Amino acid sequence: MDNLYVIKIGGNVIDNSENLHFFLNDFASLDGYKILIHGGGKLATDLSHTLGIEPRLVDGRRITDIETLRVVTMVYAGLINKNIVAQLQRYGNNAIGLTGADANLIKASKRPVKEVDYGYVGDLNKASVASDKLEQLLQSGLVPVFSAITHDGEGQLLNTNADTIASAIAVAMSSSFKVSLVYCFEKKGVLRDVNDNESIIREIGSSEFEQLKSDNVIAGGMLPKLHNAFQAIQNGVSDVYIGKSDELPFLKEHLFGTRLFA
Amino acid sequence: MDNLYVIKIGGNVIDNSENLHFFLNDFASLDGYKILIHGGGKLATDLSHTLGIEPRLVDGRRITDIETLRVVTMVYAGLINKNIVAQLQRYGNNAIGLTGADANLIKASKRPVKEVDYGYVGDLNKASVASDKLEQLLQSGLVPVFSAITHDGEGQLLNTNADTIASAIAVAMSSSFKVSLVYCFEKKGVLRDVNDNESIIREIGSSEFEQLKSDNVIAGGMLPKLHNAFQAIQNGVSDVYIGKSDELPFLKEHLFGTRLFA
Repeated sequence: MDNLYVIKIGGNVIDNSENLHFFLNDFASLDGYKILIHGGGKLATDLSHTLGIEPRLVDGRRITDIETLRVVTMVYAGLINKNIVAQLQRYGNNAIGLTGADANLIKASKRPVKEVDYGYVGDLNKASVASDKLEQLLQSGLVPVFSAITHDGEGQLLNTNADTIASAIAVAMSSSFKVSLVYCFEKKGVLRDVNDNESIIREIGSSEFEQLKSDNVIAGGMLPKLHNAFQAIQNGVSDVYIGKSDELPFLKEHLFGTRLFA
Repeated sequence: MDNLYVIKIGGNVIDNSENLHFFLNDFASLDGYKILIHGGGKLATDLSHTLGIEPRLVDGRRITDIETLRVVTMVYAGLINKNIVAQLQRYGNNAIGLTGADANLIKASKRPVKEVDYGYVGDLNKASVASDKLEQLLQSGLVPVFSAITHDGEGQLLNTNADTIASAIAVAMSSSFKVSLVYCFEKKGVLRDVNDNESIIREIGSSEFEQLKSDNVIAGGMLPKLHNAFQAIQNGVSDVYIGKSDELPFLKEHLFGTRLFA
């Protein structure tokens, strides 16, 4: 099977035009099949603020009301996505910018209203990703670039977590490719000592993960990240990398951040 | 050769959600190969106004400064484009939303600065449209939906006239398809009497066009529209229709607006 990289970047890359510039250059140099997923970052918050739309949070989680959905559709699917595509074209990658609505690639369900109404937020399931269509785009030489917007198939766009999209795409494509899922975040990897940015743990197998958890080496915000990563691995993804975007050139030699595997 | 409809809609369809709704329903019902191109309409002007960006006009022509480019990229390529795609998905069309940067489908040149600096505006040439790639998307069952944004191949997005994009796509695709180019505008067609909305001229051949011009039946704003249409026909397009969006269902029976032909 061919290798496929599914790479997710977030605010720490997108919000800094120099970081983004270097990252896209490195991403363009990566050979073989690849898919980029980007979150939104600060630009959407800034535009909402300028437009006088107050962010609504419940238990620290953002509510996507109809005004916020309009803003994220403009910023994620328009401004950020199309600028990334234009940059990648410049670097010789035949990028194509997509939401889940395009070619019906990711069909989500509006999150059911329980204690909290999260608004226009999409949840994914196993059948959400149209992997055949996505494979067709890859095979025709295109580099798909996804913003974190999906749809429900009934005409409604939905704001969707970019990490979740990356993981769902990686799992869905693992029946046709040997998939490496790559999360770029603000640290160089999973750290043995949170106060030492160089104390990167290079590799964590699933059994070692259990040990690190009981030893309390991995805790806090890192725990759900790794749980989701190992879930992707259980569902067919070959390995998951977590590291810093500027170290992407080392990915080919498996020297990017922390590598998680079965 | 298979038939291909290249259909352009502008502000009078997009700015009215009911018009847009009915149009997309009718568009979705149209069988065979088709491509939709949409302009921007009032939404971009409204957002610019809210953001305090003053429209700059020179000789009645709008200047696209960097702030305006950001707005049109958000509104055209994000908000409008993705909502159209989601609606078409609802109606069973496998739509894919595109700019010229996506898959490098339309490469433009920034308009040279002469007496006037139009800013980030893209001009097209004969080689601008990647017709092979576009045909590949059509053949794979997708319905391309273009917003009027292109790129220069050097990382710069460019605001581009939607009529020009429609015409360039129609001409480029006419080597592989029998292309009908359809312009939706506010009237039911070319009128024999501008004060009588029902005085539609059903068909105009190129020789008849010369006659109508010298008889002063066609004048004013209609002249450049028809000149461009006949230029497309000279360059390979089979026929050009000009009419009102709500009469789209009559297109198949050649009863949509005015039909122009060689």
